[in-house]
Amino acid sequence: MIKLTIWNENYHEKTNEYVHMLHPEGIHMTLAKGLADPEFLIRTATLDEPDQGLPDEVLDDTDVLIWWGHVRHKRVPDELAFKIVQRVNDGMGAIFLHSAHRSKPYRYLIGTGGDLRWREVGEHCNVWTATPSHPIAQGIPEVFRIDHEEMYGEPYGIPTPEDVVFISWFAGGDVFRSGVTFRRGSGKIFYFQPGHETFRSYEHPIVLKIIKNAVFWAADRTPAPLTTREIPESVEPLDPATLELHSVHEHHAPVN
Amino acid sequence: MIKLTIWNENYHEKTNEYVHMLHPEGIHMTLAKGLADPEFLIRTATLDEPDQGLPDEVLDDTDVLIWWGHVRHKRVPDELAFKIVQRVNDGMGAIFLHSAHRSKPYRYLIGTGGDLRWREVGEHCNVWTATPSHPIAQGIPEVFRIDHEEMYGEPYGIPTPEDVVFISWFAGGDVFRSGVTFRRGSGKIFYFQPGHETFRSYEHPIVLKIIKNAVFWAADRTPAPLTTREIPESVEPLDPATLELHSVHEHHAPVN
Amino acid sequence: MIKLTIWNENYHEKTNEYVHMLHPEGIHMTLAKGLADPEFLIRTATLDEPDQGLPDEVLDDTDVLIWWGHVRHKRVPDELAFKIVQRVNDGMGAIFLHSAHRSKPYRYLIGTGGDLRWREVGEHCNVWTATPSHPIAQGIPEVFRIDHEEMYGEPYGIPTPEDVVFISWFAGGDVFRSGVTFRRGSGKIFYFQPGHETFRSYEHPIVLKIIKNAVFWAADRTPAPLTTREIPESVEPLDPATLELHSVHEHHAPVN
Amino acid sequence: MIKLTIWNENYHEKTNEYVHMLHPEGIHMTLAKGLADPEFLIRTATLDEPDQGLPDEVLDDTDVLIWWGHVRHKRVPDELAFKIVQRVNDGMGAIFLHSAHRSKPYRYLIGTGGDLRWREVGEHCNVWTATPSHPIAQGIPEVFRIDHEEMYGEPYGIPTPEDVVFISWFAGGDVFRSGVTFRRGSGKIFYFQPGHETFRSYEHPIVLKIIKNAVFWAADRTPAPLTTREIPESVEPLDPATLELHSVHEHHAPVN
Repeated sequence: MIKLTIWNENYHEKTNEYVHMLHPEGIHMTLAKGLADPEFLIRTATLDEPDQGLPDEVLDDTDVLIWWGHVRHKRVPDELAFKIVQRVNDGMGAIFLHSAHRSKPYRYLIGTGGDLRWREVGEHCNVWTATPSHPIAQGIPEVFRIDHEEMYGEPYGIPTPEDVVFISWFAGGDVFRSGVTFRRGSGKIFYFQPGHETFRSYEHPIVLKIIKNAVFWAADRTPAPLTTREIPESVEPLDPATLELHSVHEHHAPVN
Repeated sequence: MIKLTIWNENYHEKTNEYVHMLHPEGIHMTLAKGLADPEFLIRTATLDEPDQGLPDEVLDDTDVLIWWGHVRHKRVPDELAFKIVQRVNDGMGAIFLHSAHRSKPYRYLIGTGGDLRWREVGEHCNVWTATPSHPIAQGIPEVFRIDHEEMYGEPYGIPTPEDVVFISWFAGGDVFRSGVTFRRGSGKIFYFQPGHETFRSYEHPIVLKIIKNAVFWAADRTPAPLTTREIPESVEPLDPATLELHSVHEHHAPVN
Repeated sequence: MIKLTIWNENYHEKTNEYVHMLHPEGIHMTLAKGLADPEFLIRTATLDEPDQGLPDEVLDDTDVLIWWGHVRHKRVPDELAFKIVQRVNDGMGAIFLHSAHRSKPYRYLIGTGGDLRWREVGEHCNVWTATPSHPIAQGIPEVFRIDHEEMYGEPYGIPTPEDVVFISWFAGGDVFRSGVTFRRGSGKIFYFQPGHETFRSYEHPIVLKIIKNAVFWAADRTPAPLTTREIPESVEPLDPATLELHSVHEHHAPVN
Repeated sequence: MIKLTIWNENYHEKTNEYVHMLHPEGIHMTLAKGLADPEFLIRTATLDEPDQGLPDEVLDDTDVLIWWGHVRHKRVPDELAFKIVQRVNDGMGAIFLHSAHRSKPYRYLIGTGGDLRWREVGEHCNVWTATPSHPIAQGIPEVFRIDHEEMYGEPYGIPTPEDVVFISWFAGGDVFRSGVTFRRGSGKIFYFQPGHETFRSYEHPIVLKIIKNAVFWAADRTPAPLTTREIPESVEPLDPATLELHSVHEHHAPVN
């Protein structure tokens, strides 16, 4: 069983009638329903819950975290964002959807701003599979269409990704690396573009299949025991004179 | 002229007699003297100065920033660390020396903890050039020896670097990717291992030559005009019906 | 001065009237004229010349090689292809244009087949700059249009490139990573999509500017002295018993 | 069941008494015995067999290929080497051991010469795990010792690997990226340094465990259906005028 936590800032759903109509229980619930799978144990969390919905006991119990945020990125405390960065490095998978390209956890993991160009007119897009051998692309056709999406366009301000799995074509003449992967420590990261709040992308069976594939992919990791530590003894014998030389110096414990 | 700012936490020099003897004016001044070059305009900055020595007017006037920190990483405000991340993305070069592997700006740029193993007994090391074609390796011998250094050892908790320029061999039996590069946005990043405060590595001519090479390499960048922005008009004509559909939805300005 | 050699299979120009009309002196001369620059010393070479136009004295005198081939890849001897691979590893820049995605030197350098999808109807394309900070993108607008090109589409069978500099949008609904870079040894490699023989892409000022930028970028390399060699003496003293143990074994010189 | 084929040039074993004593049935059989596993269906092949031991029916029936060659690389026909490159791109795993760094299939896959420095005195080495979270490192200690090995040293002439899983320390003062991974098409590639013919590295339990891990890792791939092909119909409607324009041009079938 994969423990999947779906986080959502849950703002548009409460302030915009049209978005509320599309996602009456919130985008997190739209996703939870669409991603339901016998292999997943799904939990949701939202920004307005205590601890932004992600207290330690929830993060500690999460194999893969899905993140949807848009206009309230700054309300996520740095402390929480850094905790997520740490959890990812320890092996938790992370899937950032749509406008999460500007979310704190994503930006702190990739080290850039995640900037891009956008146009919000609901044009259609074709999503192309650029790396068909990637596990996230299994069972996905070479190309599929989404009738209405927000355009996200290059240049996309990310470091060279490990894999560009999908590239999207937009009717307005733009292109976008819409599905890209990164790794940090033991953790796998997937960014995927579809999912504007005013459209029905999370009811699109191929979009859902891709996100499901990404959950399976990101959950399959090996925990790394890596910790910063002093190693007093060496594997090879060392010259006692060297040690002597050093012994005149005090050791400096970190003072913060 | 390359505007080079050398930042130092400047703590050991003021609290430890032996370190003070080695670096009477601080490690930043040891570096400033060693790196003096007709092509460089060198400025130093330290943690205990106002704005931690790096007010906006200094950062704005810096082409390449060298960072030395060890036991006071946490005293660097997140706000400053993020400003540096932004400046690097905008094209400022960044060179992180020795224990800066745990500094905030480095960690926020690479997205991992930068963890490693260490042993502080002053053993000798051999630094091997793993990528002789890299600009930072120009004029550097295939291998050179440092008589006394702190051992830093693998596993080194970094993402796959763009280039592993140097790998070090330590007498105690350890190895370390001691010179690695990354890019974020328009900025180039070099991490280099030598430089423990109780040794004279910054008087070693090859160590200094490598850092100089890195300054030239990191200064040679092109500023990226990338900014997040809405693109109301498309390159291609769009179906008016699409625009109609969208017009029923209000536009959501970010609320933070 | 950069010594630039432009190689062309020069087949369509001699067998097809329309192509001959567009490139009366061959695509290599169309390129030579378009790329003329006070910094370049340009030479051309074609498949039907002795040694396929690339005897050792030409390759030895080339800083950057441009390659255009389409239907006669197999007529390039493996021996020549491997020589080019070696020269690139030694520092020669290589620019592969359009249908050179299936040329031997390109495929032997990247290790994959370079496969892609294509459609030859002359639709228009928009070329987007995906990495504006790359030297090859300097002075290039965010997007530009080519009125008629052959469509090349994803999935594009290449290893993860160092940089995706350009991504193209095609009117027929396809996308393509149209400008990508790789490095092998000391050599820099750029693949660029435009340039079908029945269109005028090599008269397009921005296409020419990109190729010029790539020549400057690829020429700026440092020769690597790397050669396979036995190192009889070690940097560190070795246990004589170890040497003793080994001395019972003969040394095996390669027998081929 | 993973179908594993172990290929060996099988030369030293027949010409050198000492090597014959260590590997009475050939290095391929030493490996076959050491790697025996209920999950593996192991077959061996050697250079002196018909078709160099690798006729199509064997390659077609191989999930992972292990390659050991040293002084007879040139006797492997290019045709076979390219077949292997193709099979790897189609999804076959490939593990190159020790002196296979200069073998044709390895070099044609990575695009560089695989050059390195070496010293054949039987010094001991410490193998460090640089990427503990990699599947190949599962169950492998942070460091282990091999009492006698040939030294392979940096600089190692390879493209930036996907992962540096292991780095070795040699008693003579050298270092080496001894375990590195690449991908080409759907295929996974692992190079691993231990295994000089005059030593017993393939009886070392940790060395064998690493190779076993690599077999499991390399076998877990998804076949990519990628093939070069023309796409006459577009996803989007195209301007009939465009098609008209093009129709004046004949289509050029490859002539080889």
